[in-house]
Amino acid sequence: MSEQWLTSLITETPQQGYELAIKMSRMGIKYTQPAAEVREKLRPVYGENADSLIASSQVIAINFQTVSAANNYWRD
Amino acid sequence: MSEQWLTSLITETPQQGYELAIKMSRMGIKYTQPAAEVREKLRPVYGENADSLIASSQVIAINFQTVSAANNYWRD
Amino acid sequence: MSEQWLTSLITETPQQGYELAIKMSRMGIKYTQPAAEVREKLRPVYGENADSLIASSQVIAINFQTVSAANNYWRD
Amino acid sequence: MSEQWLTSLITETPQQGYELAIKMSRMGIKYTQPAAEVREKLRPVYGENADSLIASSQVIAINFQTVSAANNYWRD
Amino acid sequence: MSEQWLTSLITETPQQGYELAIKMSRMGIKYTQPAAEVREKLRPVYGENADSLIASSQVIAINFQTVSAANNYWRD
Amino acid sequence: MSEQWLTSLITETPQQGYELAIKMSRMGIKYTQPAAEVREKLRPVYGENADSLIASSQVIAINFQTVSAANNYWRD
Repeated sequence: MSEQWLTSLITETPQQGYELAIKMSRMGIKYTQPAAEVREKLRPVYGENADSLIASSQVIAINFQTVSAANNYWRD
Repeated sequence: MSEQWLTSLITETPQQGYELAIKMSRMGIKYTQPAAEVREKLRPVYGENADSLIASSQVIAINFQTVSAANNYWRD
Repeated sequence: MSEQWLTSLITETPQQGYELAIKMSRMGIKYTQPAAEVREKLRPVYGENADSLIASSQVIAINFQTVSAANNYWRD
Repeated sequence: MSEQWLTSLITETPQQGYELAIKMSRMGIKYTQPAAEVREKLRPVYGENADSLIASSQVIAINFQTVSAANNYWRD
Repeated sequence: MSEQWLTSLITETPQQGYELAIKMSRMGIKYTQPAAEVREKLRPVYGENADSLIASSQVIAINFQTVSAANNYWRD
Repeated sequence: MSEQWLTSLITETPQQGYELAIKMSRMGIKYTQPAAEVREKLRPVYGENADSLIASSQVIAINFQTVSAANNYWRD
């Protein structure tokens, strides 16, 4: 992918870190299914399925572990 | 999201940390499905499904790993 | 939740830590489905389903990672 | 559980550690479903299901992360 | 596998690290199913299934944790 | 298991570490289903199922986290 979308894992606040984790989770889907129209078609499918939403939250949680460690948990 | 909901990962007690992990897990769902009425409709679906509840507990467990590390496991 | 159920991650032995991980896993379900009668109704469902039992063991394993790290793996 | 089954995470070799991780994974199932005759009945179900076997291997992998860290990866 | 495809976990940027995590995730599938024509046949199946895409993103997230730690989160 | 199959987590290269992670993932299945003829029968089932392949890649990813940490990410 030539687009630069992940130049740093460092964010100013935990919430920005969480939102970066969301972006990372979405990019994992985008790399696997590059066709925007297919992803668009699937959105209502998983958006109204409880288990898909829980699974989405889990991917975000895993990516947020990475971002949090990178930022030393914003403790400094 | 302009609402500020995650300003720190630091909590006073492990239980408050666990409850923050629950909030983080729910926000992962909220970011993915922003429509409150859809999420409301899904609540009885996953709330009465054993596998959905186990999966929810798993997302909480992953987020709690992050919060616990951030708080140095409340050892200090 | 006003009940105090998680005041520390420190336990005397690995087994007590494992049992704390089980409690944490169950609390994740309880926070998501607070109605005791619903949870009671679901118990035979997941208790006789192999995949649900494996998934339960997985949540415990994740929580035990947290408890183990908190206790420095009971090495000291 | 009054039985003492987890007194230490330390093992002599990585393989013993892996086998401890298997025991931990099984105990997670046993605590959730204490009835031996039910677990016995489920064994052929998950034992001949590819996805259940993969999921079992995943739980072992997570527990082995814990055991490996406890043993400092048997590097010393 | 005689092909050398993973000589280092070190990358110059987080994005290159993320793309390495994607490669690692795909190689996990390739080692399990070496037949290219079978994998090719499956691509449209998971590529149009929301839950498969979420699961793919999760595997990438786990591999990215490894790559990020290896690179000390590109902090240096 | 009397066979010695895991005497060390240390490997010379990341790729050898990844291949060790694959072996560990397979051994998790073998310990759970020791009958070779059953495992053999299941191979075409998961080998042609996209979700099973993704799940397999996930188990490998988790085991590779362990192997990578053991090898200090082959940084030295």
